[in-house]
Amino acid sequence: MTGPGQGVLSKRRTRLLARLASGRGRVREGRVLVEGVRASGEALAADAAVRFAVCSPALMRSPAGSALLTQLEERRVMPDWVGEREMAAASATASPQGILLVCEEPSIGLEAMPLAEDGRFLVLDGIQDPGNMGTLIRTARAFGLTAVLALDGAVDPWNARVVRASAGSAFRIPVLRAPWSEVREWAAGVQVVVADAGGQDAAALSVTPPWMLVVGNEGAGVRAEIREAAGARAAVPMAGAADSLNAAVAGAVVLYALTRA
Amino acid sequence: MTGPGQGVLSKRRTRLLARLASGRGRVREGRVLVEGVRASGEALAADAAVRFAVCSPALMRSPAGSALLTQLEERRVMPDWVGEREMAAASATASPQGILLVCEEPSIGLEAMPLAEDGRFLVLDGIQDPGNMGTLIRTARAFGLTAVLALDGAVDPWNARVVRASAGSAFRIPVLRAPWSEVREWAAGVQVVVADAGGQDAAALSVTPPWMLVVGNEGAGVRAEIREAAGARAAVPMAGAADSLNAAVAGAVVLYALTRA
Repeated sequence: MTGPGQGVLSKRRTRLLARLASGRGRVREGRVLVEGVRASGEALAADAAVRFAVCSPALMRSPAGSALLTQLEERRVMPDWVGEREMAAASATASPQGILLVCEEPSIGLEAMPLAEDGRFLVLDGIQDPGNMGTLIRTARAFGLTAVLALDGAVDPWNARVVRASAGSAFRIPVLRAPWSEVREWAAGVQVVVADAGGQDAAALSVTPPWMLVVGNEGAGVRAEIREAAGARAAVPMAGAADSLNAAVAGAVVLYALTRA
Repeated sequence: MTGPGQGVLSKRRTRLLARLASGRGRVREGRVLVEGVRASGEALAADAAVRFAVCSPALMRSPAGSALLTQLEERRVMPDWVGEREMAAASATASPQGILLVCEEPSIGLEAMPLAEDGRFLVLDGIQDPGNMGTLIRTARAFGLTAVLALDGAVDPWNARVVRASAGSAFRIPVLRAPWSEVREWAAGVQVVVADAGGQDAAALSVTPPWMLVVGNEGAGVRAEIREAAGARAAVPMAGAADSLNAAVAGAVVLYALTRA
């Protein structure tokens, strides 16, 4: 179908959407659920491999939504059209915008990531909240970083909630999953800075690329092994209560300070 | 009861919790739902007026949770004890931590807020996402601001999701609701800075207190009337994609830059 009709999603696709939305088995599927107009637009702009698209008439209420339909057509992706009720059931968001894409996970290995002299990397260690991880990926892209590395123990960076919180930026900057043991080996010679409330004022640090900023778990911070390997600890000086910034905000402010240096 | 038992919440309290969690009628109730160990701790530390507390045995699994119980006892607040299932039903969070407080909304009027010479205010105009508003309140507190003013048209700052995202900081910094017409009159002579992706580098702005930073709606930014009244427009310079920071992150970075100046 090329327009809204009475289409009903196949059972196979419905089950896949449910698995991707909940995150269960997502890694094994190697697929990513992208929801909403903005994130879908970013995925298409990044030439993500779309496996299928699900649309509801709500999509056509906005010019941006209609533009997405044209883009899908240009790629010869024929959406499955569903009603708003079916869309609401398939969507993990409270107010779906009439479009879901199922894309292949952009899989980049560390071995394929050049360690350029001007490399600036954001490393996520033990971040648990999908909203925080998505916000940090979005911020890394805005500040022009080279790539984001999600370590073992962090939430899956291709979790649907992460992709949503990143507003699709996860498709616009390389996002890799890798254990710290491999990252450490790959990045020998790279300056390691950890975000740490007990560290020095980030704005006063002299950091030159290549560097990596490691942002740690919401409660426990960066794991001891990485803290000990780090050349510098960067903090956000606070006039108010210490240690009271959200992990994503603290990471974003440190990134801002380092990228200005 | 002074310990976990078979208590069941009264119908009246159950209904009140449901209203506060959904936000419907919250303003009329004048009550705030506080969830979790950290936010409850902040509310108690701020001497919030607790109307009642609901606890489940899960609270006693952590030392911080047990400490809260002692604090409640010291205030002669006798919690309603419920089972984990009832707690899950009453809670708006995916993983409740065994404590809910219903507090009175700290009500401060503009007329009671002194406009000190060193005043630094965060003004929220049209922020719709409770997570963004809570994060901004938390950030304002961390950076030692004087108060947060939520204008007409912004999400209710005492919404349960805002309080949760603020990690209880909403109780630790004055948070006021006021229409712009009143704020403008109250703050005559105060330098108004708006966060605006098209503005000047926030770090290069020379701003001296008293000032107010206005952060606008996630899509549309700050309303025209305020933009026109502003003495400066502050932006976060981005090496990567323009206009791609989350509203709370952009506001936080501008606050950081202004409070360092």
